Amino acid sequence: MKKLVLAYSGGLDTSFCVKHLTDEGYAVHALTVDTGGFDTAEIAEMEQRALSLGAKSYKRIDVTEAYYRDCLRYLVYGNCLRYQTYPMSVSAERMFQAITTAQYAVEIGAEAVAHGSTGAGNDQVRFDLAFELSGRELDIITPIRDLKLSRQEEVDYLAKHGLQWPEKKGTYSINAGLWGTSVGGAETLTSDQPLPESAWPVPVTETESRKLDLHFTEGQFTGFDDQEFDGPVAAIKALEQLAAPFGVGRDVHVGDTIIGIKGRVGFAAAAAVLIIKAHHLLEKHTLAKWQLFWKEQLSNWYGMMLHEGQFQDPVMRDIEAFLESSQGTVNGTVHLTLHPHRYTVDGVTSPNDLLGAGFGSYGEMNKGWSGDDVRGFTKILSVPGRIRNKVDGEK
Amino acid sequence: MKKLVLAYSGGLDTSFCVKHLTDEGYAVHALTVDTGGFDTAEIAEMEQRALSLGAKSYKRIDVTEAYYRDCLRYLVYGNCLRYQTYPMSVSAERMFQAITTAQYAVEIGAEAVAHGSTGAGNDQVRFDLAFELSGRELDIITPIRDLKLSRQEEVDYLAKHGLQWPEKKGTYSINAGLWGTSVGGAETLTSDQPLPESAWPVPVTETESRKLDLHFTEGQFTGFDDQEFDGPVAAIKALEQLAAPFGVGRDVHVGDTIIGIKGRVGFAAAAAVLIIKAHHLLEKHTLAKWQLFWKEQLSNWYGMMLHEGQFQDPVMRDIEAFLESSQGTVNGTVHLTLHPHRYTVDGVTSPNDLLGAGFGSYGEMNKGWSGDDVRGFTKILSVPGRIRNKVDGEK
Amino acid sequence: MKKLVLAYSGGLDTSFCVKHLTDEGYAVHALTVDTGGFDTAEIAEMEQRALSLGAKSYKRIDVTEAYYRDCLRYLVYGNCLRYQTYPMSVSAERMFQAITTAQYAVEIGAEAVAHGSTGAGNDQVRFDLAFELSGRELDIITPIRDLKLSRQEEVDYLAKHGLQWPEKKGTYSINAGLWGTSVGGAETLTSDQPLPESAWPVPVTETESRKLDLHFTEGQFTGFDDQEFDGPVAAIKALEQLAAPFGVGRDVHVGDTIIGIKGRVGFAAAAAVLIIKAHHLLEKHTLAKWQLFWKEQLSNWYGMMLHEGQFQDPVMRDIEAFLESSQGTVNGTVHLTLHPHRYTVDGVTSPNDLLGAGFGSYGEMNKGWSGDDVRGFTKILSVPGRIRNKVDGEK
Amino acid sequence: MKKLVLAYSGGLDTSFCVKHLTDEGYAVHALTVDTGGFDTAEIAEMEQRALSLGAKSYKRIDVTEAYYRDCLRYLVYGNCLRYQTYPMSVSAERMFQAITTAQYAVEIGAEAVAHGSTGAGNDQVRFDLAFELSGRELDIITPIRDLKLSRQEEVDYLAKHGLQWPEKKGTYSINAGLWGTSVGGAETLTSDQPLPESAWPVPVTETESRKLDLHFTEGQFTGFDDQEFDGPVAAIKALEQLAAPFGVGRDVHVGDTIIGIKGRVGFAAAAAVLIIKAHHLLEKHTLAKWQLFWKEQLSNWYGMMLHEGQFQDPVMRDIEAFLESSQGTVNGTVHLTLHPHRYTVDGVTSPNDLLGAGFGSYGEMNKGWSGDDVRGFTKILSVPGRIRNKVDGEK
Repeated sequence: MKKLVLAYSGGLDTSFCVKHLTDEGYAVHALTVDTGGFDTAEIAEMEQRALSLGAKSYKRIDVTEAYYRDCLRYLVYGNCLRYQTYPMSVSAERMFQAITTAQYAVEIGAEAVAHGSTGAGNDQVRFDLAFELSGRELDIITPIRDLKLSRQEEVDYLAKHGLQWPEKKGTYSINAGLWGTSVGGAETLTSDQPLPESAWPVPVTETESRKLDLHFTEGQFTGFDDQEFDGPVAAIKALEQLAAPFGVGRDVHVGDTIIGIKGRVGFAAAAAVLIIKAHHLLEKHTLAKWQLFWKEQLSNWYGMMLHEGQFQDPVMRDIEAFLESSQGTVNGTVHLTLHPHRYTVDGVTSPNDLLGAGFGSYGEMNKGWSGDDVRGFTKILSVPGRIRNKVDGEK
Repeated sequence: MKKLVLAYSGGLDTSFCVKHLTDEGYAVHALTVDTGGFDTAEIAEMEQRALSLGAKSYKRIDVTEAYYRDCLRYLVYGNCLRYQTYPMSVSAERMFQAITTAQYAVEIGAEAVAHGSTGAGNDQVRFDLAFELSGRELDIITPIRDLKLSRQEEVDYLAKHGLQWPEKKGTYSINAGLWGTSVGGAETLTSDQPLPESAWPVPVTETESRKLDLHFTEGQFTGFDDQEFDGPVAAIKALEQLAAPFGVGRDVHVGDTIIGIKGRVGFAAAAAVLIIKAHHLLEKHTLAKWQLFWKEQLSNWYGMMLHEGQFQDPVMRDIEAFLESSQGTVNGTVHLTLHPHRYTVDGVTSPNDLLGAGFGSYGEMNKGWSGDDVRGFTKILSVPGRIRNKVDGEK
Repeated sequence: MKKLVLAYSGGLDTSFCVKHLTDEGYAVHALTVDTGGFDTAEIAEMEQRALSLGAKSYKRIDVTEAYYRDCLRYLVYGNCLRYQTYPMSVSAERMFQAITTAQYAVEIGAEAVAHGSTGAGNDQVRFDLAFELSGRELDIITPIRDLKLSRQEEVDYLAKHGLQWPEKKGTYSINAGLWGTSVGGAETLTSDQPLPESAWPVPVTETESRKLDLHFTEGQFTGFDDQEFDGPVAAIKALEQLAAPFGVGRDVHVGDTIIGIKGRVGFAAAAAVLIIKAHHLLEKHTLAKWQLFWKEQLSNWYGMMLHEGQFQDPVMRDIEAFLESSQGTVNGTVHLTLHPHRYTVDGVTSPNDLLGAGFGSYGEMNKGWSGDDVRGFTKILSVPGRIRNKVDGEK
Repeated sequence: MKKLVLAYSGGLDTSFCVKHLTDEGYAVHALTVDTGGFDTAEIAEMEQRALSLGAKSYKRIDVTEAYYRDCLRYLVYGNCLRYQTYPMSVSAERMFQAITTAQYAVEIGAEAVAHGSTGAGNDQVRFDLAFELSGRELDIITPIRDLKLSRQEEVDYLAKHGLQWPEKKGTYSINAGLWGTSVGGAETLTSDQPLPESAWPVPVTETESRKLDLHFTEGQFTGFDDQEFDGPVAAIKALEQLAAPFGVGRDVHVGDTIIGIKGRVGFAAAAAVLIIKAHHLLEKHTLAKWQLFWKEQLSNWYGMMLHEGQFQDPVMRDIEAFLESSQGTVNGTVHLTLHPHRYTVDGVTSPNDLLGAGFGSYGEMNKGWSGDDVRGFTKILSVPGRIRNKVDGEK
């Protein structure tokens, strides 16, 4: 029997895969790579289900800390929002699940590795790429993509083999993780309709405004208000808890998939969006102009490559080195106000604040230079234009 | 007597300049370059005041249409928001005022040209640069920058010469134009305090939500809902009227001034922000991925150069050619909802929509390619990584 | 019988295709897209060979002028040398052959379209992409890639069917076109060996130095010395004639293929290299700094996309608009000296020369600004650094 | 008496400054910052001259190793050639001299700091900027820029004070340093004339070709052939010795000065050019495509900022981090051939060579993927274009 590792999420598609691949003669080892999206009860249920469907083994690997350290951290440094909107909640997570699955397959000496993605989205490419780059020659098995079964056909297959799959709970496909929850289906398949209030995973229950202070040390989000957290991951989770009921950080992303079609997906990512917007403001106070300029270009690229499954490209490590180098002065507190359905970023308090450094201030009179200095400055700035005028005039 | 053109806004600084420069022996020709910020009554009052202060002549030139056609249009094409926030409401306008003033000085054969900017901000550079590039050797006279008078000293000077300047109306310096209103002073001189509700020029008076459709033709905003407009300028003005009472498009910009200090300024730019955000979404539906990528980089640069007074650099014309070329398919309607203090961009309807073109859709099964095609695609995408693995493994 | 258009070059691979596809039951219409690489005798011979192998029809379409106007022109504007070395002699040409073949297939109502590229290089992707984008559903037939035959097997197959294929003339695969000749094989399959003198298509027969003036109008190469040419294409051909015997414009390109492997190929492209290097120098004299900066970035991308078969991506049209816009002042004559095996670019004479415009000259004393102006300039330039020093010092 | 540090090069301008500033009442401390351009005898002579002209002290600080480690190293990593031509021989050196002079002034508690640059070039800005950023309020004294004396006037002044300045040795201003020698004057003040053979500092005395192997470890040039060197600086000096008599690495740079005029300067930089061209080829074999892409953009910027005196901008440290991160695999030997007046880069031998990794080779048949994989690849690549075709066709 061929040893196979299956990236197992507990959903219908990968549950079908356990059974189907077992029937096909594989020794299926189901692996759940946890990036902060599952609690203990869910894991226990997933284990039970996988084994009952025929899996030889079940394992859960928690990579949340590595996921934060090796990826989310840089998304914050880079203020990464795909097309100025989407924090890539799913993109980053899926990448880490794929890479970890490939590593596990190598580790236990599997000959094959499988994922349950369809043939229409980004996830298949992320998995395929990570599997190809495992360093071993692994067979890549993709039953859902190859068989093109409908949901009903999968349910029927499982039923025929004794597993009653529960009715679908709602209209939408939901994917929840540390960096946000994506919401797909119904309206997101159109171009013109927004998601209804009921589609969002967390309803807006907060009705009052609330001040909120986010703290950053060398670019990393370390916590909020006067609470203590056991590391950034814990702080992110707590912030999501707090902010999601305000209904902030929700939007619909329209983007280019890796396979070239345009896609539309809703997301609710209160913590990710607040952290990034706050971090960006802090940088405007503490970084030099050209750092901001190049960070924007490189981060845009970094986000795109991550989104497209190219996290393992060596240029990503080089961009990370750039981003890390830039964060030394990104320290301080960002003041926000949460309101139902919206928030404002109100200001910063930072030991590295370059604004108003007793040097003259914008709109007031200056120290540190004179009017004549500015006159000289613009005189020199105008030299190329004056030369062009002269050359043009001579013709 | 030396003939001098003064860029005249009717405020205290430039009113002082009229009187002061006249006293200094200049024949002062006051010029107001209107970029959509003044009504007839204001112009009449400005004319009367300039002449009463000693100006030899007063003229108002309306450049609003040129300002839209030669500049704002490209800011929309480029979705230009400085540091992802500020529509450069003042930057663009001041540039056009400066250029027009320089042209007028050449036209009437002036020997000198003056502006009333202080030595602490961006405007002085914009004026200086445009004046230097007039194509003539003009003396550039800058009394406010050179004399470093306080507001009170200017008021006293005018009083001594018979003009009672009215008490300052409020705490804030306000600059209103077609592309938004800036609000500076008090809190904006700190890093940590937001502007209070009372600081904004238009109070939030709308209490109900409202649907809003913005229409675009080849990238240009042409109007909204089912109203007819006499060109984009009229449509922008009407949109501002409509949307400002919702309190949208307000924020505080933190940025790098041309002279190297950090600055902070509030702005209320409902029309500009709604148009740009709507236009950007429409582009996500209608442009190719690499168009979006390069547009972002070039527009970022375009906005920066404009902001910094470098509108006349030849590279700006080249970027405009790029942007113009990209807009052929940016057609359609963008659906928004205005709420008090916020808005949502809900979707688009476009004849050029590339999303869901009967080609397979994101999250559903595909036509136009097979699972094997994607398998081949990722196989090839993985080639460089597999080669690296092999080369590394051999060592 | 299925109607098929074959991109026919007259070589062994595509000759094999004519016969093989005819045997497979296709009505083969052989098409040679001429981008300046064939003379009348060669075309006549190709026609005869194609028909004798069973082709239903033979056609040659000369696209040289369009190839220059729609592509080479922009490679000159952009000073495009892939990885600072390779003028993309083959890349551009193959793209135009592929696109024209696809158009012809649509025009004559073919159901299938074929190319003779192997599965190891760039050309297959260029053909496949252009064929996919014909606007029709065409079967794409690729016998050489699919059958993986050796040269000998192809020769034997043709021999069995009555065609005696001539012995291979040399060690190298040669591809000659308007923009240069590529040389592959033997040493280029290693990393460490250069091509021997004998590998180059044109031996170095010139032994004396020679002055050479290249003329440009709005960025376009129009001719050299005092000769008159019937358009740029004629001038390029004449320049290649003249310069190739000096052995200039030869090098070995090492690059990334579209399919992810590294490749190495020799090229001899005297005209292309001289024109680009001359044009670049002329631009240094006539363009503004930021034009040079952005041209470099955009042209780099343009060259890469062209090289990778993505000529039809809409962003290419936008980049072309940028490049075209930038060339208005790129006028004048560039002075070169050819020596055996090398050349020097000696200087320019241009009505748009911005160097030494009576404005002060580099290394001599200045007019147009004073020492105090520069002092003010650097004072302002130093503001951000002085603020950082102050903020750092306060901690 | 005001304590002043003078950046002293031993030439006429700075010798004049010693005397003149002493006469003006300064206690002049002459400092020579050595970046590899002086030998012991020259230093002794400079010391003697400075003291005889009235300097209170003379000091030479050798920063060659720091100059290599903190700057030249990155110019190699980045393959930095300004406008694809100039290795910035003077730019980098002057920057380090300026920074070291500022640091020394702070160290010895000087109140003023002086340089001898004219008001027409780049050097004044490099010195001014570094002096402004010393972290202290230093007076910046610039006699040559302010007095605008001619050479003869300076000679006369010194003669009047008892120092007979030797006749100028040649037509050209020469600046020799570790990274190359610049040559300015006569022809470089025109646009159309090349430098004559006699202008170059080292005549071409080699008449035979010669093989040359350059070795690199993690991107750093470590030596050549089978010689051992005491670090990269020694290896660079030896390479310059060896290669200069071949007349390679000579060219004329046309560029934009910091103050906005165009400038033209000759340079002879055999070692710098050979190292950079060799390093670049090695990278083409050992780096991933997107590393090459981003390195090119960032290095271009890095070179420009360095050239313009902005070495101390924080973004430079971030770019260095990127570049450093990219060099791990840039190991191996590059094979060159030197000929009189030219050289060829022939190939590489590298343990990290990604070319021909037993994976299929360019132009031959492939392993690692199949023709069907490429077919799938291009099918997916064509998706956006096919969608556009469909959307356009429907209208």
